[in-house]
Amino acid sequence: MNNTGNKRAPSMWAMASGVALCGLSIFALPGDAAAQALKPASSPSFSSKEMQMVAPALESYTQVLLLGDVWVRPDLSPRDRSIVTLAVLIARNQPLELPFYLNRALDNGVTPGEISEIITHLAFYSGWPNAMAAVSATRPVFAKRKITSKQLPSAKVQLLPLDKEADDKRAKSVDENFGKVAPGVVQYTTDALFRDLWLRPGLAPRDRSMVTVSALVASGQVAQITYHLNRAMDSGLTEKQASEMLTQLAFYAGWPNVFSAMPVFKDIFAKRTVGATGM
Amino acid sequence: MNNTGNKRAPSMWAMASGVALCGLSIFALPGDAAAQALKPASSPSFSSKEMQMVAPALESYTQVLLLGDVWVRPDLSPRDRSIVTLAVLIARNQPLELPFYLNRALDNGVTPGEISEIITHLAFYSGWPNAMAAVSATRPVFAKRKITSKQLPSAKVQLLPLDKEADDKRAKSVDENFGKVAPGVVQYTTDALFRDLWLRPGLAPRDRSMVTVSALVASGQVAQITYHLNRAMDSGLTEKQASEMLTQLAFYAGWPNVFSAMPVFKDIFAKRTVGATGM
Amino acid sequence: MNNTGNKRAPSMWAMASGVALCGLSIFALPGDAAAQALKPASSPSFSSKEMQMVAPALESYTQVLLLGDVWVRPDLSPRDRSIVTLAVLIARNQPLELPFYLNRALDNGVTPGEISEIITHLAFYSGWPNAMAAVSATRPVFAKRKITSKQLPSAKVQLLPLDKEADDKRAKSVDENFGKVAPGVVQYTTDALFRDLWLRPGLAPRDRSMVTVSALVASGQVAQITYHLNRAMDSGLTEKQASEMLTQLAFYAGWPNVFSAMPVFKDIFAKRTVGATGM
Repeated sequence: MNNTGNKRAPSMWAMASGVALCGLSIFALPGDAAAQALKPASSPSFSSKEMQMVAPALESYTQVLLLGDVWVRPDLSPRDRSIVTLAVLIARNQPLELPFYLNRALDNGVTPGEISEIITHLAFYSGWPNAMAAVSATRPVFAKRKITSKQLPSAKVQLLPLDKEADDKRAKSVDENFGKVAPGVVQYTTDALFRDLWLRPGLAPRDRSMVTVSALVASGQVAQITYHLNRAMDSGLTEKQASEMLTQLAFYAGWPNVFSAMPVFKDIFAKRTVGATGM
Repeated sequence: MNNTGNKRAPSMWAMASGVALCGLSIFALPGDAAAQALKPASSPSFSSKEMQMVAPALESYTQVLLLGDVWVRPDLSPRDRSIVTLAVLIARNQPLELPFYLNRALDNGVTPGEISEIITHLAFYSGWPNAMAAVSATRPVFAKRKITSKQLPSAKVQLLPLDKEADDKRAKSVDENFGKVAPGVVQYTTDALFRDLWLRPGLAPRDRSMVTVSALVASGQVAQITYHLNRAMDSGLTEKQASEMLTQLAFYAGWPNVFSAMPVFKDIFAKRTVGATGM
Repeated sequence: MNNTGNKRAPSMWAMASGVALCGLSIFALPGDAAAQALKPASSPSFSSKEMQMVAPALESYTQVLLLGDVWVRPDLSPRDRSIVTLAVLIARNQPLELPFYLNRALDNGVTPGEISEIITHLAFYSGWPNAMAAVSATRPVFAKRKITSKQLPSAKVQLLPLDKEADDKRAKSVDENFGKVAPGVVQYTTDALFRDLWLRPGLAPRDRSMVTVSALVASGQVAQITYHLNRAMDSGLTEKQASEMLTQLAFYAGWPNVFSAMPVFKDIFAKRTVGATGM
C-alpha cells in the first residue's frame, strides 16, 4: 500500500482556492507548482495535451484538484480510494476509464485477486453486463503485467465462516417481507449472495462492503445504503473513512449522487454514536 | 419458443448451494456436471477461458448459476427472459452485450419484428440515444442471419384498436396534473405514445408492458412501476411471471434495483388479489 | 443562433397524429412531406437507410417526430435544445452520439468555448469519467473544424463577481447540515464549485444552470432539482423555456425521467408565481 501522499497537509488546495474570492481562478497560484510535483505520469485515458485541446480548465482541475489534492487527502488511503474508484467505474459501466484506474489500483496495493473479486461482487450488485465489460477491460491490463489466473482466487475456495445467527435473522426478515413476492430473488439472496459470494475470502468483508456502498452511492440507490454502510462499519470501516469515501465519490460519481447519500450517512453516523455511548 | 429447459426441477443449484454452509464453495459439487450439460455454446461477449483469466469465480457463476440455473427456472419462458434481458441492456445502454443476447433471443423465439419494436419502444422509455446504440449493435446480427427489412414492421402500419374510454381517462388525468407545466410532454404522451406507439401491432401489448416494466426496474425508476405493472397484468402478465421477471432482473440489472422494486410489486400483487376476491 | 425553424406553427405533427385515432399510423400523411423538407442532412450516428434495416418505425419517428417536430418547437431555441441534449449525453455517458450533436450544437450557435465549459461543468455534476469520455468524443469534432485551444477559455480566467452574501448563506446551510458528516465534500462544494467553477465566465450562469438541471433530470436525481431550477430561473430561464426543456428531455432521457421531474417543476412554477404576485 502506498501511503506516502497521506502525510502531507490537506490545506494546499484549500489555501489556493481561498484566494479565488479575489476574482482570479486558482490556477495562477503557487499551489500549482506543489501539485505539479505530486501529479502522476499520465492523466486518465489520454495525455494532458489532448485534454487541453478540448477543455483546458478540466485538465487543470484534473491535475491540481483531483489527482494533486483529493487523492492525497488523509483519512482514506490511496489503496482504498482506488477500490472506491474501481467500484464506481464498474457500477456505472464506464470501462474506458478502467485501464488507467486498474493500473493505479495495482500500483496502490490492490492485489489482482482483490480486483477479480471486486468484479465478481459487482456482477451481483451492479448487474452481469457491467461485470462482463469490466472483465473485457481488465484482461489486457492483467496480460501486460503478466498476471495469470494462478494469482487469482479460484472458483472453488474455502469460504469464511458464516455468522449463522445473524444471517438467519437477515434471511428471516427478507423472507417475511418478500418470500411470496419474489421467491427466486429471496432464495438467491441467501444461497448465492450471503452464504457464498460474501464469504469468499479473496476480498475482506470490510472491503466488500466498501465496494457495495460505493456502487450504491454511485448509482443513486439511496434506499439500500443504510444496511450496507452499517455492515461496512461493523466490519471495521471507520466514520472518517466513510466520510472520505463521500469526497472521492463526489468526483467520480458526481456531486448530486453524493448530496443524495449524505443524509443517510449522517443518520447512520448519529445512530451509531448514540449506540456507542449507551444513550 | 424453446421451453425445454423449463421442465427440469429448479432445485439443483439450491441443493448445491445449501452445502456452502459447510464452508466449501458450491463449485466442487456434482451439480457442476449437470450444469455443464445445460450450458450454451459460448459465454457473453467472450470465451469462458478469457473470463477465467480475470475472474474465475465469475466464470463459474455465469455458467452454473446464471446460464445453468436462472435461465431455466419455470414460471417465465426463455423467450420472455430474453425480452426482459434485451430491455435491460437497452435501458442501461450496454450495447456490447447485445449481440450475444440478441442471438439468444432469436434462438428462443423472439422474432426480428419484435426486436425491432422493442428498440423503437425504448427510444421513448429509455431515451433516443439508447435506441440508436441498440440499432448499431443489432444491424450486424440481423445481417449475419440475413434478416431484411421485409421481415420487420414498416413505419406505416394498421394500428390496434384504441380503448378510447380508458385512454381518455388517462389523458385527462395527465392533462389535469401536468397540462400547464409541460404541455409538450403531455401532447406527445397522448399522440405519440398511447395513441400511436402502444397501438403498433408488431409487439403484443403484454410484451410491450413487460419491456416497459423491465426498463423501469433496471433504471431505478420506482415511481413509474405501479401504472405499468398494472397495465402489464391487465394485458395478461401473470403474478408468477412478474415475480420471475424480478429474478431475471436481479442478475441483469443488479440486486439493489430489484430490492427497490420489490415493495412496489408486493403492493400491486396485494391490491390486485383483494380486487379479484371482491374485498 | 439559428432560430429559423422556430417560426413555423407547432401543429403539424399534432394534426398528423390526431388522425392516428382512425387506426392508421401517422406516417402515411401529408405532414410527412413537410417534415421531409425540414430534416437535416444526416441522422444521428448513421444513415437513415441503415436505421431502416433494423427499425423502420424508429427511423420515421426520428425524422418526422424528433428532428422534424420537437427540435423546431417554439419556446426553446435550437441553440438551447442543443445545450440540453449535450448535457443529457454527457450526464448519461453516451459519447457515441456526441459527434452528431456536437456538430449540431456548433451549427446552432453554441460556441466551442461553451462546449468546453459544459464538459468541465459536468465533470463535477455527472462525475469525472463522463467528462473524460466527452473530451475523447469532442476532440475529433474540434479538430475537423480547426477549432484550437486559443478559442477556448483557458484554465486561468478572471472570474465573475461572487454574490458573497447569497453564497455565504448557501455555504452556512450546507455546512450546518453536512459539515461534520463530509467535511471534504462541503469544502470542495464551496471552494471548487460555487466560488470557482460557477464563476467561470465562459458559460453564462443561466446556461450553466440549464446544463445542471438537464443533467439532474436525465439522471433521475429529483431531490436536487429544486435548488438548481430556482437558480436557473433566478438567472433568467423563463417558465416556458423550462417547460420546453422537459419536452426535449423526454425524447433524449426517456419519458420516465421526465414524469419523475414534472411534479418538482410544477411545484416550483407554482411557488414562484405566488411569490411574483406577492401572495
